[in-house]
Amino acid sequence: MMKKHFLETVTIPPLDNEVGQQVADYLDCLTKPRGSLGRLEEIAIELGKMTSKKLPTANKPGAIVFASDHGITAQGVSPYPSAVTVQMAASFLREQATMSIFCRLINAELRIVDVGINAELDEPALINCKVRAEGTRNFYHEDAMTKEEALQALAVGFEQANELIATGIDCLILGELGIGNTSPSSAMMAVLSGKDISEVAGPGSGLADAGVEAKRQTLCEAIERRGATADDVLVLLQQVGGFDIAAMAGAMIAAASKRTLILVDGFISTVAAVVAERLAPGTKNYMLAGHQSAEPGHIIALEMLDKKPLVQLAMRLGEGTGAAVAYPIIRAAVAALTELPTFESAGISDKQ
Amino acid sequence: MMKKHFLETVTIPPLDNEVGQQVADYLDCLTKPRGSLGRLEEIAIELGKMTSKKLPTANKPGAIVFASDHGITAQGVSPYPSAVTVQMAASFLREQATMSIFCRLINAELRIVDVGINAELDEPALINCKVRAEGTRNFYHEDAMTKEEALQALAVGFEQANELIATGIDCLILGELGIGNTSPSSAMMAVLSGKDISEVAGPGSGLADAGVEAKRQTLCEAIERRGATADDVLVLLQQVGGFDIAAMAGAMIAAASKRTLILVDGFISTVAAVVAERLAPGTKNYMLAGHQSAEPGHIIALEMLDKKPLVQLAMRLGEGTGAAVAYPIIRAAVAALTELPTFESAGISDKQ
Repeated sequence: MMKKHFLETVTIPPLDNEVGQQVADYLDCLTKPRGSLGRLEEIAIELGKMTSKKLPTANKPGAIVFASDHGITAQGVSPYPSAVTVQMAASFLREQATMSIFCRLINAELRIVDVGINAELDEPALINCKVRAEGTRNFYHEDAMTKEEALQALAVGFEQANELIATGIDCLILGELGIGNTSPSSAMMAVLSGKDISEVAGPGSGLADAGVEAKRQTLCEAIERRGATADDVLVLLQQVGGFDIAAMAGAMIAAASKRTLILVDGFISTVAAVVAERLAPGTKNYMLAGHQSAEPGHIIALEMLDKKPLVQLAMRLGEGTGAAVAYPIIRAAVAALTELPTFESAGISDKQ
Repeated sequence: MMKKHFLETVTIPPLDNEVGQQVADYLDCLTKPRGSLGRLEEIAIELGKMTSKKLPTANKPGAIVFASDHGITAQGVSPYPSAVTVQMAASFLREQATMSIFCRLINAELRIVDVGINAELDEPALINCKVRAEGTRNFYHEDAMTKEEALQALAVGFEQANELIATGIDCLILGELGIGNTSPSSAMMAVLSGKDISEVAGPGSGLADAGVEAKRQTLCEAIERRGATADDVLVLLQQVGGFDIAAMAGAMIAAASKRTLILVDGFISTVAAVVAERLAPGTKNYMLAGHQSAEPGHIIALEMLDKKPLVQLAMRLGEGTGAAVAYPIIRAAVAALTELPTFESAGISDKQ
């Protein structure tokens, strides 16, 4: 008998609103003017609801970067050659990528998972979970992946996140790495949001205006050629998706099923978040949006999830870097909640 | 012969735009899509201009919190009794204040300087630089301070900052502590900006609507009674200012004179920044704005300095907490600039 796919068995627990209220009440007893920590107090309350703990933690972040190639790059949708994917993966293995640097700053364990880099990289630090050796197919000409591949990519993410969560992390950051990955993200987001591709697709890693125009045209045609619709997100993933997006979505579902905070990164990560929410409703309750990237589709994806980014720094690097930069805000929220004394314990007068 | 006041001798060095350009050029050689770190790249360039270093640091933050009382509290402008100032100072000495907690998170040395707490606090951890034992006078009835007191408060800030900078800090955060201190800040900002007090003064630490209305009325009358104008910021400081505001302004001038980054906090800190810029033009070139607080006058003060806050978290706690929460963004900008390899050194292909 075949093992059931996690999507058939996973359950997303509801938020614990009672604990959320307890956290809110406790915040009002702490030695600071009521509500004076603004958004930090909202974060603390959200964390209470997610974790079902009155004094939640988010002190041990962990990050997974899913790396893969995208067949659509053959259509010239990126200013970088596809070969850069493997070069960037190598820079992660040397711990010199931007995300490596930022993870050191926040003491986050960082795992790199190969879900389809179009190269052999025999490095022990790279977790080999290739779904397809060459990456996705060119979705201008054929479906990006089969149904089995889509399910496998989701399962890889689910398992990797479960493994990392089992080590004790209490905040999951997901990133991606792979030349061309704003193209499947833009195609999926245009279809899921019903918006025109021109509102969603942007320069990615740095296309000039003419390049952006050509990318939009390519994606618009590809969506039509695939007959892509928003009816079934798993089918959409097969038609115009990416292994990285699917794996991130699977990882998010795992975190939500374990009541673990997901700190969402930029455009690609947020598209994965929308996919995760469609596949396992309620997953979004365990998400906070780290930042708002410069890519135009990102704000559309955030709005679909009803999430307000913690920072707006016009970053568009990917890898999980925006979430890593935003993480210390979460850390500060938790520290204030758990370390401030109450008015009573400190013997300080409250408001007149 | 009397020692000259620092305002007569201090010079603010101009920004080093040449080094700024070198940093910008170098950023384009690093292994990331050009410009993809957005605001972080702008921060790195600013730091280059400030420090005149191609690889600037901002790795060792230091904070000074100036604590004082305000005579205007006798008019009922705060929801907290004035006695809370000394209680909050005591919580700093127990390292339990919100700012104490946030400084631990960012490894910042934190100094507490008493510039006029209306109480005797014989604690070695509290640096006693009282300008006037009772705090400022009630500026509804008389000038808040004499010219000599204003100059002394500025000098205390200048000296304290110089001392801390001499220990090797490369990012100065300034905070304040003292019940009622949004009132002098609001009065000064209304006069300096020419805006109506209703656009500037807000709930402070948490006044209800009727209280805000009464506070605005009190401040409006006090400004008129003092005959306050924007002609001379030193006179304005005497008329409706605070020792904390003056000390923070002096500290900022010290940092700018030493090419040291000033990370500006919320409303009161930003009013001090406007004062510092008036007293020593060019000081603002060494400032980055940490956050935008919920107090309505803050955005007006930021606009006067032409500064865009790094984060917007609706915080209104003061103490330097907003700047401390924003600091990791600066740290990330520096880490990216100084730790990323170049395309050449990493053997990675640049854009096609």
